[in-house]
Amino acid sequence: MNKAYREVEQHMRETSAIGSAAGLVGWDQETMMPPKAAGSRAEQSAALAGVIHEKIVDPAIGRALKSLSKNPKDMSEAEKVCVREWLRDYMRAVKVPTELVQEIARVTTLAHEAWIRARKTSDFKVFAPWLEKIMRLTRKEAEHIGYEEHPYDALLDHYEPGMTVRQLDPVIAALQRGLAPIAKRLIGSKERPDTSLLRRRYPEADQEAICREVIKLMGLDMDAARLDRSAHPFCCGIAPTDVRITTRFDERWLPQALYGVIHESGHALYEQGLPEKSFGTPLAEGVSHGIHESQSRLWENLIGRGLPFVRLIHPMLKKRFPSQLSGVSARDLYRALGRVKSTPIRVEADEVTYNLHIALRYKLEKGLLVGKIKVRDLPGLWNEGMKELLGIKPRNDAEGVLQDTHWSQGLIGYFPTYLIGNLAAAQLWAAIRREVPCAEAMIARGKLSPVLEWLRTRIHRHGRRFSPAALIERATGESLNQRHFLDYIKTKYGGIYGIGEWTQAR
Amino acid sequence: MNKAYREVEQHMRETSAIGSAAGLVGWDQETMMPPKAAGSRAEQSAALAGVIHEKIVDPAIGRALKSLSKNPKDMSEAEKVCVREWLRDYMRAVKVPTELVQEIARVTTLAHEAWIRARKTSDFKVFAPWLEKIMRLTRKEAEHIGYEEHPYDALLDHYEPGMTVRQLDPVIAALQRGLAPIAKRLIGSKERPDTSLLRRRYPEADQEAICREVIKLMGLDMDAARLDRSAHPFCCGIAPTDVRITTRFDERWLPQALYGVIHESGHALYEQGLPEKSFGTPLAEGVSHGIHESQSRLWENLIGRGLPFVRLIHPMLKKRFPSQLSGVSARDLYRALGRVKSTPIRVEADEVTYNLHIALRYKLEKGLLVGKIKVRDLPGLWNEGMKELLGIKPRNDAEGVLQDTHWSQGLIGYFPTYLIGNLAAAQLWAAIRREVPCAEAMIARGKLSPVLEWLRTRIHRHGRRFSPAALIERATGESLNQRHFLDYIKTKYGGIYGIGEWTQAR
Repeated sequence: MNKAYREVEQHMRETSAIGSAAGLVGWDQETMMPPKAAGSRAEQSAALAGVIHEKIVDPAIGRALKSLSKNPKDMSEAEKVCVREWLRDYMRAVKVPTELVQEIARVTTLAHEAWIRARKTSDFKVFAPWLEKIMRLTRKEAEHIGYEEHPYDALLDHYEPGMTVRQLDPVIAALQRGLAPIAKRLIGSKERPDTSLLRRRYPEADQEAICREVIKLMGLDMDAARLDRSAHPFCCGIAPTDVRITTRFDERWLPQALYGVIHESGHALYEQGLPEKSFGTPLAEGVSHGIHESQSRLWENLIGRGLPFVRLIHPMLKKRFPSQLSGVSARDLYRALGRVKSTPIRVEADEVTYNLHIALRYKLEKGLLVGKIKVRDLPGLWNEGMKELLGIKPRNDAEGVLQDTHWSQGLIGYFPTYLIGNLAAAQLWAAIRREVPCAEAMIARGKLSPVLEWLRTRIHRHGRRFSPAALIERATGESLNQRHFLDYIKTKYGGIYGIGEWTQAR
Repeated sequence: MNKAYREVEQHMRETSAIGSAAGLVGWDQETMMPPKAAGSRAEQSAALAGVIHEKIVDPAIGRALKSLSKNPKDMSEAEKVCVREWLRDYMRAVKVPTELVQEIARVTTLAHEAWIRARKTSDFKVFAPWLEKIMRLTRKEAEHIGYEEHPYDALLDHYEPGMTVRQLDPVIAALQRGLAPIAKRLIGSKERPDTSLLRRRYPEADQEAICREVIKLMGLDMDAARLDRSAHPFCCGIAPTDVRITTRFDERWLPQALYGVIHESGHALYEQGLPEKSFGTPLAEGVSHGIHESQSRLWENLIGRGLPFVRLIHPMLKKRFPSQLSGVSARDLYRALGRVKSTPIRVEADEVTYNLHIALRYKLEKGLLVGKIKVRDLPGLWNEGMKELLGIKPRNDAEGVLQDTHWSQGLIGYFPTYLIGNLAAAQLWAAIRREVPCAEAMIARGKLSPVLEWLRTRIHRHGRRFSPAALIERATGESLNQRHFLDYIKTKYGGIYGIGEWTQAR
């Protein structure tokens, strides 16, 4: 046993415990907090963030980590992983000067307010000067963090450790080349699944009951989780034994809550699958945003919107909503859930067109960061991109370049993780279908545990032991690529839209 | 402006913000936390407690406080109050050596488990050695804290700053002398209000609706508060803008939730009445447990169980429970709520006998502390006391000496604050009836704001500005005494039980 390691571990577990308490405080803010408490809550969150930051950048811990890293005697493999990851976090935290961190915090607070105003009035000019400031500060941040080839790598690495522009560019280019014509053909198709059955009146209480049944089927342990309501759905992993998801209900749009809950439960299963005994160390933390998103998207789309799963929940839905779903078959439901439609809004996009929204944002934010794109040219480039990729023109900037909150909060390099999640989900799904005997037949019969078990073994239990790239390669036998996603889309939508050459191509 | 003061204030506000976040984490544990999360929650709470403790005993802050206290230049009166109270808290925190604090924490954790086992099997021997340890450690603690006359003063002072045995002994003795014969006569009376109407079936959802109506009538701002369920009702003041109360429901006992909610709302009104702009300083903290309890008891008993208030809620209850309360008049309800009955269990005691339960505990824990009473003699002394004060003998130690959790958690000196709260409530109520025009007529008509306004002005807004004793004296013109409580009990119960000489005595 290495005594220096024990001391570092103790410090880190405490830091993590305070971090998870801060996570709970954030969860409460979105779900339970009385409206007038916003001011006091801001003080609580700021005070906790201050304590956590102090603990993270503690120079004594930095020295201890560097020494353990150079001289890893009497340490297990797991402990070496912890030191590696703690040192990684430490270096990122100390490389950016405190003044720059504070300046970014100050500017993004104001920028976010400006963005809210700009979106409300659909006036990009209100937000433009703030976006310029944010890009300038973010470039500085990237320089401090350092990178080998592209400043964007320094940002990407925060959300997707090890990922680079050099790896991502060809994948996204190939994806876009394959996907754009598919999307165009589906959007233009005369074959249009009837979605009116999803727009009947579905009372909230019954929707909630269905959501809870589905959560149970998926295998989420509700003695270690909660489901609540919030304005924006999210999953908050406070500990492997305390995972909280939220949803919102639309009585006139059945998929809103149901598929929102399946998505968040995908995240929650990952959190519950992290090894409980390692709580407070990197071994019990999700490895990246992309891998986290792969779990939510796998359950939401590849499994949840697949025919076997729809067959499974169809009788449950019919029982709960007999009049609304009178005469609706499982296949009708499956087709309705598989309607492809161009929309200017990312969060409303279907699984076919979604990645095209991301590809555009990736191109633009990369260009903005290195100064190849000027902020003032952004709305024009946005609209051109939408035209090219989806054949549509946003009616205004509010439903165009101003639609997402990310940039106003300084989240540059975050968008690609959605796309990585979608590709990884398809790649994992292909592996599951190869390796889990009769996976789809089992799903249709309500036996989802073999799939969950596979994910537990291949993804969840590893925490941050492997890099995201290595994790995917170990789980699927290949590095992250677009091929499984494109195959999946062609096969599924070729079926729904009656396009023979796509389904035979596989 | 005093720069040193600003720095101390900044530190203290941060400490307080983390403390209030820890309060929220505790609230979540009792109301929302998934059952399996207990382990991770313990780590979070311990980590927060550690951070808070470090900040409280920070020697640099101690030096700054002492210097500001000696040389209070350029400081407002309010700032001087803050320095006085911060220094008070600091001195209490640093006087007890860390090893003793840790030893007490360790012993009380185990003692609490032993107490649970002891109570379950009604076996005092299981708990006795732990209580001996706790008393030994508590004596040490009292010596470190210091006192002028009685070691118990060092403990009392923690919950009721400035209170001493010398002040309390004569008040409790006089109270006991006055109260015991009253209780005996009421308990023995042939006149027995019919309480069966409270034991009909009252569905939980309707009870909750009534509770929410009553909360609103009382003037609690529900945009700055919440009501939830928990096993043991409590009020948690996270900030003046974020106050959370809980209750539990018994469908066969109407007063359980209703009067529980009124009690907790009394606490909550105090918290909401603290000055919001001073959040994070002693000016926005409750001054003592006794004063806090005076607010809850005033609303629960003096107001809530009084005839004007019962007249006010009677039609609301009749509307919600027409069959259960068919033929029940406001006076029937008032009388049912005023039934006096001897019970061995403190938390089930009515307002007449309650203080006798406390008087016994006060006498015993004082004796244990100074070694006049041996732990092994405790069950016998307990049962003798119950016989003498209430004329009953507990069937076993589980409903006798083992009934309360306090001692097992090391809370010695806490019990008297319940009694102080009851006496202060009666004293405040007498002042309100003198000073608020037509207070009772207003209450009967649903206009409770003049009473709340009086409490806001005389009690709530002061925070810790005055000592509890000074606060009571300023608000009522007298020091804390038993007379108003005894007068109130005689008048009220003389009426209910038809004892003419009591009602005329006033």
